[in-house]
This record gives sequence, C-alpha cells and structure tokens, in this order.
Amino acid sequence: MIEKDETFKKMTNGEWYFDSPTVIAKRDATRLALQKAGQMLDNQQRINAIQTLLGQTGTDFFVETGFECSFGDNIIVGDHFYANRNVLICDEAQVTIGNHCKFGPGVSLLTPYHPIDPTKRATKIEISGPITIGDHAWFGANVTILPNVTLGKNVVVGACSVVTKSFPDNVIIVGNPARVLREIPTEN
Amino acid sequence: MIEKDETFKKMTNGEWYFDSPTVIAKRDATRLALQKAGQMLDNQQRINAIQTLLGQTGTDFFVETGFECSFGDNIIVGDHFYANRNVLICDEAQVTIGNHCKFGPGVSLLTPYHPIDPTKRATKIEISGPITIGDHAWFGANVTILPNVTLGKNVVVGACSVVTKSFPDNVIIVGNPARVLREIPTEN
Amino acid sequence: MIEKDETFKKMTNGEWYFDSPTVIAKRDATRLALQKAGQMLDNQQRINAIQTLLGQTGTDFFVETGFECSFGDNIIVGDHFYANRNVLICDEAQVTIGNHCKFGPGVSLLTPYHPIDPTKRATKIEISGPITIGDHAWFGANVTILPNVTLGKNVVVGACSVVTKSFPDNVIIVGNPARVLREIPTEN
Repeated sequence: MIEKDETFKKMTNGEWYFDSPTVIAKRDATRLALQKAGQMLDNQQRINAIQTLLGQTGTDFFVETGFECSFGDNIIVGDHFYANRNVLICDEAQVTIGNHCKFGPGVSLLTPYHPIDPTKRATKIEISGPITIGDHAWFGANVTILPNVTLGKNVVVGACSVVTKSFPDNVIIVGNPARVLREIPTEN
Repeated sequence: MIEKDETFKKMTNGEWYFDSPTVIAKRDATRLALQKAGQMLDNQQRINAIQTLLGQTGTDFFVETGFECSFGDNIIVGDHFYANRNVLICDEAQVTIGNHCKFGPGVSLLTPYHPIDPTKRATKIEISGPITIGDHAWFGANVTILPNVTLGKNVVVGACSVVTKSFPDNVIIVGNPARVLREIPTEN
Repeated sequence: MIEKDETFKKMTNGEWYFDSPTVIAKRDATRLALQKAGQMLDNQQRINAIQTLLGQTGTDFFVETGFECSFGDNIIVGDHFYANRNVLICDEAQVTIGNHCKFGPGVSLLTPYHPIDPTKRATKIEISGPITIGDHAWFGANVTILPNVTLGKNVVVGACSVVTKSFPDNVIIVGNPARVLREIPTEN
C-alpha cells in the first residue's frame, strides 16, 4: 500500500520531501492507468477506470474525457460529482471534495509547491498543501485552485479565477486573485 | 434527427431543461466520435471526422488536435476557419462563428449555465445561452467566451481574456473580465 | 533539413511569411510524431520520442503527457527540465529555455503573431517572435508567455499569469498582464 511509504506520507502530510522510487513508481502507474482510460471508447468503462484510481468516490460520479491526476489515492470525492473535460487534480496532498460539486472544463486543483530559493528548488525538494472544497461548489471553466485553499459550502467560482486563499460559505468569487463578488442569499 | 427531440430543442433555445436519454445518447455519440478522431493519424481524415460532427462548416476548415465539443450539431462555422490545439466549444446553445476566424490554442466557447441557488443546481436543471462571433475574429491563446456573448466583426481578443459580455465591431479587448483596450482603425 | 528551407528561415527569423508546402509538411510530421508519442504507454519511450523532436535538450529531461509543439526544431532546452501535463510550445520562432527550469501544468509559450488589420490577416501572412527563458525559471500552472519575451534568471511566474513583456533576474511576477510582485533576495 502506497499509504505506508514514508516519502508518500511526508508528501501527503505537507512536509518537505524528495521523490522516492516508490513515489515515482506510483506516479508512473497512475499515468499509465490514465493513458489506458483515455483510450477506452466505452464511456462507463472509462469512468470506472478513473474511479478505481481515486481514494474514495461516491454515487453518481461523472468525469468527462481528459481527466488527469498525479496519484489519485489522495483524492476524496463526495456524491453527485460532475467534472467537464480536461480537469486536473495534482494530489500530492489530500484533496477533499464535498457532495454535489460541479467542475467546468479545464479546472485545476494543484497541491504541489516548490521553494522560492533557486538553489533549494534545484535540489528537487518539494512540499504540498491540501485543498478542501465544500458541498455544492460550482467552478466555472479553467478555474485554478492553489495549495492550502479551503472553500466553504455553496461557493461559486467564476470562469478562469485563480483561488489563492480560503473563502467561507455562500459566496461568488471571481478574478486573479479571486475576490468575493457577492454573497449568495440563503433561504434560512 | 436530434433537432426534433423536445429536450434538445429546449436546451438549444435557452430554456431550462433536464438532460433526457436522447440528449445523453447524443452527447455520448459525439464524445466517442471525438475520441476516435483523436486517434486518427491521418490529419485530413481527422479534420473531416470533426467537420462531419458540426452543424455546418465552410471551405478551408482547419482544426488542430484536441478539439472538443458537446454535440457539434449546434456549431455553425464560416469559411476560412482555423483553430489551434485544444479548442473547446460547449454547444448546448447555438454557436455561430463567421468567416475568416482564427482561434489560438486553448480557446473555450461555453454556452452552459447552472442556477446560482445550490438546491436548484443539485436538481441538475440547466440552461444555456448562444454565442455569436463575427467575421475576422482573432482570439489569442486560452480565451474564454461565456454564454450570451455576441462579438461584432474584426474583434481581436488578447490571450487569456474572459469575455463576459458583448462587444461591437473593430475593437481589441483584453483582461478578465475583458474590456476594450483600443479600437481598430478601419480604412473606410 | 528543414533549417535550409527559405520559408522556415523567414519564419524563424521573425520576418513576415506565408506557409510553404515544406513548412506545412514539417508541421504535419511533428503533429503525427506527437500523436504517436501520446499513445506510447512506456513513459521513457514517450519522453525519448519528444526529446527527439526538439532542437536541443540536456540531461535530466522530463515532460508529462500532453506535451505539444508546432515543429520542435526551434526549441532549445537546458539541463534538468521538468514540464508538467499539457505544456504547449508554439515554436514558430526560436524558444530557448535555460537550465533547471520547471513548468507547471498547462503552461503555453507562444511565438506566433498575426496582423491586426483584418484584410491582411485574412491573407494568412504571419510573423513570430522569439522567447528566451533564463535558468531556474519556475512557472506556475497555466502561465502564458507571449512573443518577444525574455525572462532573466530565477524568475518565478504565478499561476495563470500572462507575460506580455520581458523581466530581469530574480523577480516574482503575477497577473494579466504580469507585473512584478516582489524581488527575490539573492545570497550575494
């Protein structure tokens, strides 16, 4: 089990780490599985193949073609998930997605980070930060979510926004960097 | 003919709708055709396969690899069309593209829209809005066009712009949301 | 050798040009080679196939799946290069990348340019401008670099930035258009 590997654990826990042969082999296995899934012409078979890669998924799971991830194991997805074409999740850290979430095409959730110092960066030491997306998120096309972002419930993110920090429940956020455009009224 | 399906008609006409088995089957057929086209190593055969999917195309039609659409049927393209790699057209509503249009890589034209209210959105009710692009458009890389946008003739859109509203003829527009950078002088 | 072709030389040298049969044939050959590389399930074989297309590469070269370029011949890459998924280099002009460069997913380096005048643009005359990236660049996800940009050493570009002009050494740049966020302290 990859979860037992010391490097994989450090990576997933947000500690500085260097790639290990085990981590590289796991990333290779996921890439291969995604390439094979991409060649499957039966749509349900393709979706099942991707679902198998992920740490946990719920009922009513649908991803369009072009879905990519680094490992898959660190991705937890709730029920009623829909991802349009070419969604990318770099799951070096834990990525948790709630129920009833909809991702437009080209959405990226990115957990990896590198040192700003070029000498340190050249050593290939890396770090990553988790991403948590609440229930009822709707991400427009080409939204990018950066490491250490937590979004509350019912957050709508405008197309092509870059989300660099966390936001609470019931807001529409837009822009680069994303800012609150307005709150979403709730019935309560 | 898919155009006779009541749900497909509601969707294309910009009314609220729920996916029907016929609409899902059509979307599946288009995805399959695009996957097969993506595997074609003969370039003209690949382009012909995509052209067959679209509602109407003109002479001198060229799309690079990675072209994607939802159905194809709702896309009308004029003569002398060029699309660079990974262009995506979500044609839930009508998408009309004039003559002599050039799209850079990663351009997205997106007609679907969801309710802002999370409870309504969870029902999977959807709506879409048409997109109309005038003659002589030039879209830089990674431009995103949102529903209900009409662009006049000779509109140049800077790389990575997000076009949220309509613009008249002869302008260069840039940014997120896109704004007029300057007018383009005409010879008349 | 494509480098001897008069049109290819004009194109690469930043002169106005029209596509020639030789240039079209070369572009077709590269597309075909990239399609074949994309179908290779052996990761090292896939990387080798891409490396073969490029004008020059160094040691420790790694590109993830989805890498695309126009020709390949005009791309020079230093040692220790890493490109995440779906990186695109339109190398109509020379693209020079230093040592120890890291590109996030969806990065685009784009050298081609078209006339603003619609009548001229419709003739399909084109021009391109070189891109030069110094050592120790780190590009976040979905960064777009436009023609005639030179970046110094150790430039960090924030996710989804659009780089429209040149920048010196040791800066973090962000936004559309990209601006200096802050300088990076050096040890000297």
